Amino acid sequence: MMEDILRKVQEGSISIEEAKNKLASYEDLGFAKVDHHRKKRQGIPEVIYGEGKTVEQIISILEAIKAKENDVLITRISEEKAKQILEVHPEFTFEKLAQILYWKSTKNTNENSDGYIAILCAGTSDLKVAEEAAVTAEVMGCNVRRFYDVGVAGIHRLLDQAKEIQQATVSVVIAGMEGALPSVVGGLVSHPVIAVPTSVGYGANFKGLSALLTMLNSCASGISVVNIDNGFGGAYNAVLIDRLARKG
Amino acid sequence: MMEDILRKVQEGSISIEEAKNKLASYEDLGFAKVDHHRKKRQGIPEVIYGEGKTVEQIISILEAIKAKENDVLITRISEEKAKQILEVHPEFTFEKLAQILYWKSTKNTNENSDGYIAILCAGTSDLKVAEEAAVTAEVMGCNVRRFYDVGVAGIHRLLDQAKEIQQATVSVVIAGMEGALPSVVGGLVSHPVIAVPTSVGYGANFKGLSALLTMLNSCASGISVVNIDNGFGGAYNAVLIDRLARKG
Amino acid sequence: MMEDILRKVQEGSISIEEAKNKLASYEDLGFAKVDHHRKKRQGIPEVIYGEGKTVEQIISILEAIKAKENDVLITRISEEKAKQILEVHPEFTFEKLAQILYWKSTKNTNENSDGYIAILCAGTSDLKVAEEAAVTAEVMGCNVRRFYDVGVAGIHRLLDQAKEIQQATVSVVIAGMEGALPSVVGGLVSHPVIAVPTSVGYGANFKGLSALLTMLNSCASGISVVNIDNGFGGAYNAVLIDRLARKG
Amino acid sequence: MMEDILRKVQEGSISIEEAKNKLASYEDLGFAKVDHHRKKRQGIPEVIYGEGKTVEQIISILEAIKAKENDVLITRISEEKAKQILEVHPEFTFEKLAQILYWKSTKNTNENSDGYIAILCAGTSDLKVAEEAAVTAEVMGCNVRRFYDVGVAGIHRLLDQAKEIQQATVSVVIAGMEGALPSVVGGLVSHPVIAVPTSVGYGANFKGLSALLTMLNSCASGISVVNIDNGFGGAYNAVLIDRLARKG
Amino acid sequence: MMEDILRKVQEGSISIEEAKNKLASYEDLGFAKVDHHRKKRQGIPEVIYGEGKTVEQIISILEAIKAKENDVLITRISEEKAKQILEVHPEFTFEKLAQILYWKSTKNTNENSDGYIAILCAGTSDLKVAEEAAVTAEVMGCNVRRFYDVGVAGIHRLLDQAKEIQQATVSVVIAGMEGALPSVVGGLVSHPVIAVPTSVGYGANFKGLSALLTMLNSCASGISVVNIDNGFGGAYNAVLIDRLARKG
Amino acid sequence: MMEDILRKVQEGSISIEEAKNKLASYEDLGFAKVDHHRKKRQGIPEVIYGEGKTVEQIISILEAIKAKENDVLITRISEEKAKQILEVHPEFTFEKLAQILYWKSTKNTNENSDGYIAILCAGTSDLKVAEEAAVTAEVMGCNVRRFYDVGVAGIHRLLDQAKEIQQATVSVVIAGMEGALPSVVGGLVSHPVIAVPTSVGYGANFKGLSALLTMLNSCASGISVVNIDNGFGGAYNAVLIDRLARKG
Amino acid sequence: MMEDILRKVQEGSISIEEAKNKLASYEDLGFAKVDHHRKKRQGIPEVIYGEGKTVEQIISILEAIKAKENDVLITRISEEKAKQILEVHPEFTFEKLAQILYWKSTKNTNENSDGYIAILCAGTSDLKVAEEAAVTAEVMGCNVRRFYDVGVAGIHRLLDQAKEIQQATVSVVIAGMEGALPSVVGGLVSHPVIAVPTSVGYGANFKGLSALLTMLNSCASGISVVNIDNGFGGAYNAVLIDRLARKG
Amino acid sequence: MMEDILRKVQEGSISIEEAKNKLASYEDLGFAKVDHHRKKRQGIPEVIYGEGKTVEQIISILEAIKAKENDVLITRISEEKAKQILEVHPEFTFEKLAQILYWKSTKNTNENSDGYIAILCAGTSDLKVAEEAAVTAEVMGCNVRRFYDVGVAGIHRLLDQAKEIQQATVSVVIAGMEGALPSVVGGLVSHPVIAVPTSVGYGANFKGLSALLTMLNSCASGISVVNIDNGFGGAYNAVLIDRLARKG
Repeated sequence: MMEDILRKVQEGSISIEEAKNKLASYEDLGFAKVDHHRKKRQGIPEVIYGEGKTVEQIISILEAIKAKENDVLITRISEEKAKQILEVHPEFTFEKLAQILYWKSTKNTNENSDGYIAILCAGTSDLKVAEEAAVTAEVMGCNVRRFYDVGVAGIHRLLDQAKEIQQATVSVVIAGMEGALPSVVGGLVSHPVIAVPTSVGYGANFKGLSALLTMLNSCASGISVVNIDNGFGGAYNAVLIDRLARKG
Repeated sequence: MMEDILRKVQEGSISIEEAKNKLASYEDLGFAKVDHHRKKRQGIPEVIYGEGKTVEQIISILEAIKAKENDVLITRISEEKAKQILEVHPEFTFEKLAQILYWKSTKNTNENSDGYIAILCAGTSDLKVAEEAAVTAEVMGCNVRRFYDVGVAGIHRLLDQAKEIQQATVSVVIAGMEGALPSVVGGLVSHPVIAVPTSVGYGANFKGLSALLTMLNSCASGISVVNIDNGFGGAYNAVLIDRLARKG
Repeated sequence: MMEDILRKVQEGSISIEEAKNKLASYEDLGFAKVDHHRKKRQGIPEVIYGEGKTVEQIISILEAIKAKENDVLITRISEEKAKQILEVHPEFTFEKLAQILYWKSTKNTNENSDGYIAILCAGTSDLKVAEEAAVTAEVMGCNVRRFYDVGVAGIHRLLDQAKEIQQATVSVVIAGMEGALPSVVGGLVSHPVIAVPTSVGYGANFKGLSALLTMLNSCASGISVVNIDNGFGGAYNAVLIDRLARKG
Repeated sequence: MMEDILRKVQEGSISIEEAKNKLASYEDLGFAKVDHHRKKRQGIPEVIYGEGKTVEQIISILEAIKAKENDVLITRISEEKAKQILEVHPEFTFEKLAQILYWKSTKNTNENSDGYIAILCAGTSDLKVAEEAAVTAEVMGCNVRRFYDVGVAGIHRLLDQAKEIQQATVSVVIAGMEGALPSVVGGLVSHPVIAVPTSVGYGANFKGLSALLTMLNSCASGISVVNIDNGFGGAYNAVLIDRLARKG
Repeated sequence: MMEDILRKVQEGSISIEEAKNKLASYEDLGFAKVDHHRKKRQGIPEVIYGEGKTVEQIISILEAIKAKENDVLITRISEEKAKQILEVHPEFTFEKLAQILYWKSTKNTNENSDGYIAILCAGTSDLKVAEEAAVTAEVMGCNVRRFYDVGVAGIHRLLDQAKEIQQATVSVVIAGMEGALPSVVGGLVSHPVIAVPTSVGYGANFKGLSALLTMLNSCASGISVVNIDNGFGGAYNAVLIDRLARKG
Repeated sequence: MMEDILRKVQEGSISIEEAKNKLASYEDLGFAKVDHHRKKRQGIPEVIYGEGKTVEQIISILEAIKAKENDVLITRISEEKAKQILEVHPEFTFEKLAQILYWKSTKNTNENSDGYIAILCAGTSDLKVAEEAAVTAEVMGCNVRRFYDVGVAGIHRLLDQAKEIQQATVSVVIAGMEGALPSVVGGLVSHPVIAVPTSVGYGANFKGLSALLTMLNSCASGISVVNIDNGFGGAYNAVLIDRLARKG
Repeated sequence: MMEDILRKVQEGSISIEEAKNKLASYEDLGFAKVDHHRKKRQGIPEVIYGEGKTVEQIISILEAIKAKENDVLITRISEEKAKQILEVHPEFTFEKLAQILYWKSTKNTNENSDGYIAILCAGTSDLKVAEEAAVTAEVMGCNVRRFYDVGVAGIHRLLDQAKEIQQATVSVVIAGMEGALPSVVGGLVSHPVIAVPTSVGYGANFKGLSALLTMLNSCASGISVVNIDNGFGGAYNAVLIDRLARKG
Repeated sequence: MMEDILRKVQEGSISIEEAKNKLASYEDLGFAKVDHHRKKRQGIPEVIYGEGKTVEQIISILEAIKAKENDVLITRISEEKAKQILEVHPEFTFEKLAQILYWKSTKNTNENSDGYIAILCAGTSDLKVAEEAAVTAEVMGCNVRRFYDVGVAGIHRLLDQAKEIQQATVSVVIAGMEGALPSVVGGLVSHPVIAVPTSVGYGANFKGLSALLTMLNSCASGISVVNIDNGFGGAYNAVLIDRLARKG
């Protein structure tokens, strides 16, 4: 591409000023373009982290994104804010438990894929994070199967569903308190496991530190970890892997 | 008992001096006696923590204990020190892996008991702590069954032995790294579980902190925790419980 | 049991489909059944952790449990929520200080037992956790004796009651601030001690970390520890031990 | 499969005893088999963590694995131990910097694959961990390209190689000190990034804690993290993903 | 100066009492004077930390300062408090985002200086701290150029402005989450970098600890760090350096 | 004093130069003199922290001190170094367990004082720190009574000696592991208690952190704390208090 | 005393029942009595920690104390609660800044003492803790001199008052943020220094941890530390020392 | 510069291939060149971190640097390694206490500058870090004045030299234990202060954490902090500032 621009300069078909802009934007677009292409081709929407932003800020950002015909995913958004945005943009969808507001320019194109991401969570208190992960993956065009409330203290609940979990492309495993679920899942499956610690618990849980350390120290191979309560991040990693598997 | 002494003073059958001693020693023996009685009756030996003590110190303490015809259990003792002591006291037994040196005045009296303590450990690196627990419980007169290398990353290894574990009186569950084993065991059994975190691991394990937090935050009920690498402490608690079950 | 099923298949007395179900459910019920049996036989109610659940969620869970004629114990429930539930289910009992709401299908059957659990707490600020422990143990059918405000800074308050504490089957010792009480109790008694650190304190207490570390490092043997403020967990362990002693 | 066994029992073609074994082993093999199959099919060798094991222990384990015709990968093994093993098993290969000793039953079968794993490290002090990752991935049959000494303090060193990194299937990014490299890489590529913090540094590095926290808090999406210094774990995750991409 | 006073005593031109006061105040003014002179000469206003002070307290302090004809800078002041003060002192200026209220006795005297301080921040959530820094530096009479939202996950945004940043006298680099920006900037520039970690983030961010450790462990030279969220402190250091460069 | 100097200047009895020196040295000697006087009058020797200093360095410092006829106390000095110094300075005394080497210019002058400092320690492993405290106090001229091995797990050992402890002027209470002893002592006595945590313990002891937090959070009043293993510091505080009591 | 009782039993002048009570109460009163005596003789009031107690609870406790004619000191009590108590007990005095409510049965008896406690604090934000300390010491009958806002960043403010501070019996030094003041004071005075860290600060202050560690690691001798924000505890220690000095 | 290249392409004076190289290298040299220029012009030598590098590695790196006629500074190098290098490169100079080995191509060119950097350290144990700072600054061509052993516990030692410190361009203040020195210095001077915490201390010092937190929380303005024991980093920042002052 750089060569093209240079050739045009040589040929005189573009001015130096134009070339400078293009080369500057080349740099710039060098990364931004990849970004754009990836987003368009793979259906990954632009993501807005809603926490700490005002309704006005969110609306102005989402309108900028929509103008480029990109999908929009807003995470960590309260019901109250979502309602105000929906009044202006009723084309958006709000997932209350997941605290996600999103808009997709096109229909899901992944209907004919067999692969799916398994989203597991240990207890009902982890549901919020699990749904953030599940909805994120769905909005990004992946099939998702939910396996909720399969914590290790009642191991049979997990084992009963082992086969279906094993056949997933990748698992996102969400757990608070002692965070032991990813280790057990990691021993059952042969695909990558993304572990998401949650801040669910009290006392020596230290706001998720306990589950985080557990997951980082897992004796099972094939487990990697994202930040505490980061359901979005867990799903994002899984989506990248799921795409590789489909594209492969 | 105080009444007895006072009555004897009133009757003049003991002098004031004698009464003072008895009352003073009453206080004193109040706890020491219970201690002595408990140890004699239950076969709990006096315990010497070997780390940081010289061979001379250990020998002088163990001889004082033996003089009272009490059993002796020395923990955290290196092979080198043990050998030196065995030269003087060949009647002692040294368990190398457990780093325990002990002497029992009498034969085990628990042969005819059906109950047993289950000692589980997650990996082969936890063996040292597991053996400290197992030998401690055995020297204290309990039956022990070992379930080693049953970590959660290969959950079937544990499940295959679930029945035998379930029939124990109490379990001592030892695990390093992420320390998830007690949670799974706690969900399988209906007896008390004593969890022992080990310092096995590296990096974000922080010398056993990871496993310790995991166990304290377990979502399974019926689990209590002792200090990192404290195999002796785990066993001691189990022995107290096992005795209650037998005596009950 | 597996053998039975297989024999019936061989004999043709059950179909393959039936056998499959039975074997599948065998696995499943393998743990679930034990659970049920244990709960029925021992009078351990199903437990609902109330924090973070809505009144509606709690009611739907408790009705499912009652349908199986199991007892129900709801912990960490605010007075406000409890009142709303009591309007629908006036057969429940609410213990305000303990923040426990419960229902028992049958009368206590432990009246004729002599054994009791000693619940000790260091200061009046630990009362909430202590009552959570005490009510839990009582609802689970154990005798409880309370020894409150016996902190180590006024050691005679504890020593005055040493005899009655020593005669318990097991002690649950609750303390905040420096958390030294379990060490002293552990030196006085010959039964197991379950230590419960509380978050009571300020500054370098770090929300209970100080008391937690103290208890894990206790120089007295026979002490095991549960999570900070986990009065329920402390009692649950004690109940399991108390049953062993009674059943023994 | 269970149905097959049951049918054979019904038909009388296998005895109940045989069926019991098969069903028992079914359970057991349920996980072990998958494991075996995966390992055979994918060329993932059995892995032995060498640290803390004696030469004798390692030899007896590796011979058991070789007997099953599985490949063998031994990590964290010192040169001294490796030399002793090589005397007995000269068919093994030792990678000194990576501290890996391995044996492969067959030639690499991935020669005709275009995909590769990018292994990046920030500084020369991270080389040991980087090589553990690189050799692990290679022994597991993946193509690897190394991008070493591309730390963020000289960002052009990284940017110069951006294109080749972007075309990898997955990146393993290794960094100590402040651990900022994965964030920058995460912003440059559209494939998954596995971040490996190292304990390289001093002072407020706290043995890798600094880099670990940095990576968990990355503002770039598509990054997941493994334990400090866990080059093997980073590579293992990458291999699983790379296989998905190839198989897809 | 001491000599002057002593000479006057010798000459009898001042009384001993006067000399005592002067010498006492000499000590006192020894530091206070420097302080005063520095403030007057350099235009550094007296600074009031607004948090935790009442409107009344702030007003009485600022009036004392104004009485000495010193400039006044009040940091960490809420809009509500600022409004109340502005009613009494409408000559003050309030910067809402920076939460700064200030008054300058004279016009900016730095218009004819070419040098400027570069204030960079990684994300929009760091704006509050960045503005505290920027406004502080401006009120203290320095030129400021803002480079906002140039976080490392989109490295081209930073590189596009590298030249302008490189030409600054000193950079104040503000970042939350993983806090990697100062390392990258430190590698691009040859002037001092003051790094300001912010508490922006969640989970394993631990209220800014993550960014703080990152910055302290930076592999780039020429970076020093101030307290979490301390935009004022970052700017203050930069102002001192900028003055040296101008004065030099 | 300043007035004196000024008056002499006025009178011309000293030159300005002399006055300048005196006033300058006044400041300087202001603290240094007090220091000297205090040390001489109270028999507090100059203290050298031996750790990390060479034999040569220590000898040159101690000779400088001796030249001023001050007593010398060297703490944290190994037996090996002490022996080398004793060859040159045989007038010194070495206390092996306390790791203290000292020299006193005069005989103890505190023989006729009734008051004494109580030095308590919890276990035999705390002896080293306890002796550092005891010898420090003795060398500084105080009477000391030792109460060793009186840990709270055997509370009667402490209570038996309560009276003698209560009659001390001040207590220095040394404990490792859970560090509970100061709380119990604090409840028994009405004089100040200086608590010294030791690093004795393992696992969740975290090198004395556990005992340190315990002591800082003590529910007993009248307890203050010094650094981990700082037997010298504990004694130094006690000596200051003991002197006040004697001098009072 | 025990001998007296026994003699009376021997003489028959008291019954066994009476003797039992006396001996029992001896134990009990052994500590309680000392307590009472100390409080009466020294004018130390009984102390109620107000935080977390209801107005009703506080009133019932204070009335029990007053019934014994003991003084009452209530700390950490809000203005709102204090007002409600003052309606019932107008004889009490409320110190708003110190958050202390107290009642003294008698006039201060320490008017004719020359000694005083120096209370220093570093900044105006530490005033609350400083006043808790100052009022506590005054209510307990000591003379107090306040040295406020003498933080080390303006060292002359402290040095100007050095002489008056040096002449105190004991200093209570209160500081937040970096907590450096006690080290400087410890180098200036020859009496004991009680250091009180406060939670004043932000960011890497970690709620007082910074100041706490500073004080524990002070390079000055003669400093001991109490819990974060524990102004009461700092004063209590100082009062015990001041009494010793006066009584001595 | 980009414009130049483009113009030459337009003019045909360079080929497209040449332009591509130049533009590519532009990026690359963009940063590398600045680096080179800065180093040459300012006399900043290339720096090699010696720890963990072999003698062979160091020699090959230093020869590469010398080949470019750049100065060489090797930090954290043991005497043993230094001696081996000196045998090959006798033109180097080794500073033993600072653990620095260096070579300068030219004589110091800063002789005629009046400005100097003040290097202060609190105690003799901090000397190693202080010398690393001092020698670093000197090798980089700055004047240095050393103010050693001026810790805050003897504040007059510092105050006596206040004037000379105040006249420096910038101060590097090194302190371990409680790390209070920078706060006091920060209050005395009006130039920037670079604070370097050291790991000197024990117990609650936690390997320098205590001093680090102290410095980050300093109540004095104008202080910024580098990593624990990072004498080199402290000096490097000071050198950048000192150059600005000289160049200004």
